Amino acid sequence: MAEPLGVAVIGCGTVGTGVVKILTEQSGRLEQRSGRSIQLRRVVVRDPAKARGVTLPSGILGTDVAAAVRDPSVHVVIELMGGTTTAKQVVLDALSAGKHVITANKALLADAGAEVFAAARAAERAVCFEAAVAGGVPIIRALAESLTANQVTSIQAILNGTSNFILTAMADGGRSYAEALVEAQKLGYAEADPTLDVDGSDAAHKLAVLAQIAFGVAARPHEIERQGIDHIEAMDIRFAGELGYTIKLLAEAWASPAAGRNSTVALHVAPVMVRKTDMLAQVRGAYNAIQVIGDVVGETLYQGPGAGMMPTASSVVADLIDLAVGRAQKSFAAAKLWSGADRGFSIEPSEKVRSRFYLRLLVRDQPGVLADVCRALADEHISISSVIQHEAREDHPDQLVPLVIMTHYAATGHFRAAVKMIDTHPALGGKAVSYPVDD
Amino acid sequence: MAEPLGVAVIGCGTVGTGVVKILTEQSGRLEQRSGRSIQLRRVVVRDPAKARGVTLPSGILGTDVAAAVRDPSVHVVIELMGGTTTAKQVVLDALSAGKHVITANKALLADAGAEVFAAARAAERAVCFEAAVAGGVPIIRALAESLTANQVTSIQAILNGTSNFILTAMADGGRSYAEALVEAQKLGYAEADPTLDVDGSDAAHKLAVLAQIAFGVAARPHEIERQGIDHIEAMDIRFAGELGYTIKLLAEAWASPAAGRNSTVALHVAPVMVRKTDMLAQVRGAYNAIQVIGDVVGETLYQGPGAGMMPTASSVVADLIDLAVGRAQKSFAAAKLWSGADRGFSIEPSEKVRSRFYLRLLVRDQPGVLADVCRALADEHISISSVIQHEAREDHPDQLVPLVIMTHYAATGHFRAAVKMIDTHPALGGKAVSYPVDD
Repeated sequence: MAEPLGVAVIGCGTVGTGVVKILTEQSGRLEQRSGRSIQLRRVVVRDPAKARGVTLPSGILGTDVAAAVRDPSVHVVIELMGGTTTAKQVVLDALSAGKHVITANKALLADAGAEVFAAARAAERAVCFEAAVAGGVPIIRALAESLTANQVTSIQAILNGTSNFILTAMADGGRSYAEALVEAQKLGYAEADPTLDVDGSDAAHKLAVLAQIAFGVAARPHEIERQGIDHIEAMDIRFAGELGYTIKLLAEAWASPAAGRNSTVALHVAPVMVRKTDMLAQVRGAYNAIQVIGDVVGETLYQGPGAGMMPTASSVVADLIDLAVGRAQKSFAAAKLWSGADRGFSIEPSEKVRSRFYLRLLVRDQPGVLADVCRALADEHISISSVIQHEAREDHPDQLVPLVIMTHYAATGHFRAAVKMIDTHPALGGKAVSYPVDD
Repeated sequence: MAEPLGVAVIGCGTVGTGVVKILTEQSGRLEQRSGRSIQLRRVVVRDPAKARGVTLPSGILGTDVAAAVRDPSVHVVIELMGGTTTAKQVVLDALSAGKHVITANKALLADAGAEVFAAARAAERAVCFEAAVAGGVPIIRALAESLTANQVTSIQAILNGTSNFILTAMADGGRSYAEALVEAQKLGYAEADPTLDVDGSDAAHKLAVLAQIAFGVAARPHEIERQGIDHIEAMDIRFAGELGYTIKLLAEAWASPAAGRNSTVALHVAPVMVRKTDMLAQVRGAYNAIQVIGDVVGETLYQGPGAGMMPTASSVVADLIDLAVGRAQKSFAAAKLWSGADRGFSIEPSEKVRSRFYLRLLVRDQPGVLADVCRALADEHISISSVIQHEAREDHPDQLVPLVIMTHYAATGHFRAAVKMIDTHPALGGKAVSYPVDD
């Protein structure tokens, strides 16, 4: 039997509490699976008096991060503080003190992956982060270990449970965005300030992490085009439904060509219309799902709870067992993540990505509007797949009526140029609304 | 750079050809991901003259298994012959010659897992088998590595692509079983002799492998109750649809209680009615999907191509890279599979599993039949959720009419006793048809 593995948990909020629960309540299970005793030796918090619903062994709760990181009986530091400033320093200090690090901090990886991983390689220690993307869904292992025979060619993923919960509530219950957000907050699926979830930032951080693994690119925030769900209107959810689609906030990566020198990968987060029969359309509530296409295996899909105390703790503890077994160290060395190693991919703006589009306008019912809109699309070589325009009511001839157009495949850049032109039309009430359509 | 890893492929049918393709065409990719050169050194076949659509380096194709297994330049033997007799001997010989083994052979693992794994431990070598279950879906890693913080409490899985293809064709196209089977054979989704696929044997072998990982039980074939799809009638597919369900061939494991001494696990393969809105109901064609509930993470789902040349080869090569990296050896040692280690679970027959049931009878329209059927169910303490019985046509009063009953939850044993009694009723035309309902 190898020597016990000592663990420090830094930050004991929701996920930290879940990790502590497993370490204290399931020690027999963890030992059986790793062949080593795994011992929780330090829990560092800001306020030790706060009730956390978990019983800690006496003497391990404290407020001194530096002492925990330096403690020679600690071999693994689990960073669950969040944020990118103090958290980064804690991670770097832990690595230079010779500890392995486990983190659920996608913002830190997206912001400072190169710095953190360089420090880890210099210290000959591993950084593990299964919990950073998609909570309890083991997508990191899937990409980094299970699909290693493949070059990934695309990723389409629901990575933000809050947004998916809101979109599901809007689609099923006919609620407005504001009503669905209030419901999500009541049920604990959305924070009091939901900005990072609903504006696509959280999903973009997670996509940056997946893109590093799948393509070896280190995407900066501005390289990931981002559109949130915070301006989605009930009307568009309804039109999507009538057309046979569901709107999902997707984080997507598209490689072109699939592999080889001078390949590119386009990354974006956007509300996307997916066919109701598509697996991603079936993903409801706060669940996450990732569909990965590999050039050898084809299409695979991974789904599960994308957040929450125990699901995320499940992924943190899986990393811990991997470190105890010695598997994580091998994986870390082999994957060479954020090492700058060129795998042949560069990031390209989404302009060149070809897609179908949903375009919805509110127009005054006057002669020539549809002709002008169609002309603007034609000028960008975009052909139209279908049009829905209902009659204005006779008693309100000046009322704005929705005009819905589905296009055939077109380059995103061309489509945007057409929309820019359409937005100048005097018969429009408000700006055009548009979403990509994944078919 | 570590020394090159030498590989022998034994058996070059569909999957073997896929593996050889990847090894010969993607050597740069494999080296980049494993940090070692991976070299195909032997390919052993029965008929070297047969065209395989792949170009081999000269001098490596042969018919001598023993020479390949003894070759000191070979470090990993990939067994893709199939069958359980010669294949077992090849695997044991490879292990005793000091080679690691990769196999896609679920029948071998289900039949002789204990013997093979004991030999591997004695030789201090690893046996890897991601490709043995669900083709390209990385379910072995999910259970053995990603969910290690969990005790799995249930598995519900579509593990046979042939059966799923046939059921999808029956449900979508209104085809009979015979018609759908012919279509599957035409398209290469079913063998000329489809018995092992459609009678549930193949799914049962795979379930035995998953149950070993998740519960530490070594299920013998007779301990897995098995009902295939080969007697499914179009009528029942139609009734299922009317009731809001889809019939899927599921391999299921149910633990009770979830963990601890004296836990049991019930294993069965059966056509099961799943709600149309359930993720498993959406799995179409030859795809596989596995839904796993863990006591920490909750519900996760894994889906992808369940068979075929390249998907299965993707899993074989992932194992090979794991061996090259050194990860597989760590995993093999930690998992202690088929070691007889008691994890607290014993296998119990399905009798005690509680489920809802679909019961369909063909009855002559005469007084008292429904009363008798209801009485037989009531005698076993089974209550009825809904009944559908249509009128017989007036011009055919003696015609058999279908009577469809959905029950509330009941123990399987009680339900079977009731069905046995119902089958003796003189008004029945043919035996009762029944399927579990997963709600």
